[in-house]
Amino acid sequence: MFKATVIVKRRPTILDPQGKAVEQGAKLLGFNNVKNTRIGKYIEFFIDTDDREAAEKELKEYSEKLLSNPIMEDFEYHLEQVKQKN
Amino acid sequence: MFKATVIVKRRPTILDPQGKAVEQGAKLLGFNNVKNTRIGKYIEFFIDTDDREAAEKELKEYSEKLLSNPIMEDFEYHLEQVKQKN
Repeated sequence: MFKATVIVKRRPTILDPQGKAVEQGAKLLGFNNVKNTRIGKYIEFFIDTDDREAAEKELKEYSEKLLSNPIMEDFEYHLEQVKQKN
Repeated sequence: MFKATVIVKRRPTILDPQGKAVEQGAKLLGFNNVKNTRIGKYIEFFIDTDDREAAEKELKEYSEKLLSNPIMEDFEYHLEQVKQKN
């Protein structure tokens, strides 16, 4: 069993309207030092196999096809073997 | 200037419908080993001060009031001093 952590971020050149909106709220609440907020996704899941190569392959495909939008997002990942949860 | 990274996650006891929906898609695409997907937020921003205590205070308040929902989410953060961007 592997535990996967995937971080999906918009490419720096791509505008982040959600980040902009949150930052406007920050100004209203007086958080004037906050700059350049960018919001991405933090995804955790388990891969039920003991074969690291197969786990990595499945993780990459899952990330490319479902967890991120390759046109405007990049992802980075971490894969860690864990004991089977009963 | 400080660079902040905040990870917002739903508490383990709270259902994650978004994670469930993505995982159903995974099954349809044949990713049968993927289990227990949970989706959170990965937020990056800068805090324009050289006072670490002030930066940490502003980061915590910003995270509690705008970036997370304290009723169902927890957050963890990382704060790193960086050179001023011109």
